[in-house]
Amino acid sequence: MKSTVTANANIALIKYWGKKDFDLNIPQNNSLSVTLDGLTTKTTVEFSSLYKHDELILNNILQSIEESKKLISFLNLIREKANINLFAKVISENNFPTAAGLASSSSGFAALALAGCDAAGLNLSKKELSILARKGSGSAARSIFGGFVEWAAGKIGYDESSYAMQLYDENYWPEIRVIVLVLEEGKKEVSSRSGMQSSVFTSPMYKSWLDTVNLDLISLKRALLEKDFTRIGSIAESNCLKMHSTMLTSNPPLIYWNANTLELVKYILELRKNGLEIYFTIDAGPQIKILCLEKDVLNLKKKLNSFDFINKIIDCSSGSGAFILNE
Amino acid sequence: MKSTVTANANIALIKYWGKKDFDLNIPQNNSLSVTLDGLTTKTTVEFSSLYKHDELILNNILQSIEESKKLISFLNLIREKANINLFAKVISENNFPTAAGLASSSSGFAALALAGCDAAGLNLSKKELSILARKGSGSAARSIFGGFVEWAAGKIGYDESSYAMQLYDENYWPEIRVIVLVLEEGKKEVSSRSGMQSSVFTSPMYKSWLDTVNLDLISLKRALLEKDFTRIGSIAESNCLKMHSTMLTSNPPLIYWNANTLELVKYILELRKNGLEIYFTIDAGPQIKILCLEKDVLNLKKKLNSFDFINKIIDCSSGSGAFILNE
Repeated sequence: MKSTVTANANIALIKYWGKKDFDLNIPQNNSLSVTLDGLTTKTTVEFSSLYKHDELILNNILQSIEESKKLISFLNLIREKANINLFAKVISENNFPTAAGLASSSSGFAALALAGCDAAGLNLSKKELSILARKGSGSAARSIFGGFVEWAAGKIGYDESSYAMQLYDENYWPEIRVIVLVLEEGKKEVSSRSGMQSSVFTSPMYKSWLDTVNLDLISLKRALLEKDFTRIGSIAESNCLKMHSTMLTSNPPLIYWNANTLELVKYILELRKNGLEIYFTIDAGPQIKILCLEKDVLNLKKKLNSFDFINKIIDCSSGSGAFILNE
Repeated sequence: MKSTVTANANIALIKYWGKKDFDLNIPQNNSLSVTLDGLTTKTTVEFSSLYKHDELILNNILQSIEESKKLISFLNLIREKANINLFAKVISENNFPTAAGLASSSSGFAALALAGCDAAGLNLSKKELSILARKGSGSAARSIFGGFVEWAAGKIGYDESSYAMQLYDENYWPEIRVIVLVLEEGKKEVSSRSGMQSSVFTSPMYKSWLDTVNLDLISLKRALLEKDFTRIGSIAESNCLKMHSTMLTSNPPLIYWNANTLELVKYILELRKNGLEIYFTIDAGPQIKILCLEKDVLNLKKKLNSFDFINKIIDCSSGSGAFILNE
């Protein structure tokens, strides 16, 4: 009753920011992401009668009951499905900063869903795993799959209606790259979970966001089909800026960027004006993800090296979905 | 045929960002500003048969024909009204950075309208001056007046329908202060004129901006009547962030902030969380204007002194409208 799984974080090109069903974690809109091979979570789950309570060791640190609450409710979902009554020990490790806007919850809950089910003897389909992972963290629904993934929003009250599916696998477009720039490793002040709720209820721009996000999605899917990098980059970047404008106009304002984020955003726009075709996307944290093509990676990295405040540069390609590592 | 005039820049609490009539400079929405005693333009206009062309000396620098184009068309309006056929020499000086988002065109064209008319022997009402100044630069319509000023948008095609009026004069509320933080003295990359046009046509958030700005205006006028500083600050700040979100989502993105702007925005939000009641507003440039009450000015300035990157702190109260200085 033990299983080890690896899963990759994903970065949304069409963002998810706001739920329409808070109980079921059903989002306001469809989103589209690329799963990244450089941001990986490895998770081992063991159910055993030897354990007297659930225990979570995250990045080598034993978590308190308070810190493990989300995990415990998630394990309860698995125990219910498997009809078992055992506590679990969960050991999870990210090879990148946790809870800093690098989508650690996407890889985290995708890995946990698969490892937990496997350890509990459940053999779910990917769709079922996606539905389950979603209840841990919305974006985890997408990390079950590799490559390019769409998460269909689904309907309020219908658990089974909201799940992700693979559009193209990780071998579809090896030339596309996501360069992740880690600027700050601390935990963010306002979690995505509460931030997005605030935007839904308080931002006067939220309606415009929703009104336009589906067109972005359709256009981006078309551009993906045609491997039209210019359109993908432009749509992803403007979609990201729209999301951030709903954050900025929330009450109180949600500002996930820091001064260095802004400096880099302007630098990226400048580089693009000068002919280097790169685009950015940013999530609920200060980190920047640059979309580019393989041919420009070396040149870009050389330029980025001049910024002292970039703590880490993680060069990612589209990666695989969650899979079981057991020997 | 010579007149010297002084006029103050104004800072909008309810912003103007976008025209509905490009020929007449008629804005999409009503706006509301406070005229500031610390940002002053002094302008002398002389019409004379001795001059062989129009000449503009701005901040002691003789401007080229290219740089004087807006001035020349503006002088043409005055010459037409006054039925004179003389060239002019214009000497204008700002006691603050020019074209960096500190509303220098508001005081500039307000002073020019009054000085030009006075030098040409025209005696216009303030309403007429406001209509005239508007054609030089929209926000100049407001700087004709002191204190708190509303600019009524007016109707497309109706020149006389779009003008400012004074809500309260400069003595109404001496305790309110605007602390202007100059972060960067250079000219902005994208002028307000072309930036706002881009937002009207390309930002998917522009409609939400327009849909909500009138409610902001009504609420802010009510709060002004009641001298309710908390509401004034909150409304002004969120109105500013909405405008910036239309900028951010324009295509290409318009980012007038720099890294230091963002750092200060976060600092101001932090100070407010800790009990210091201050609010910010930002226009089409990196500079920050802090709204506060007189009682907090000393404390605030002490805190701001720790930021090396603030080039200048200009402490303003509500100031007077344009007036003639001639001895």
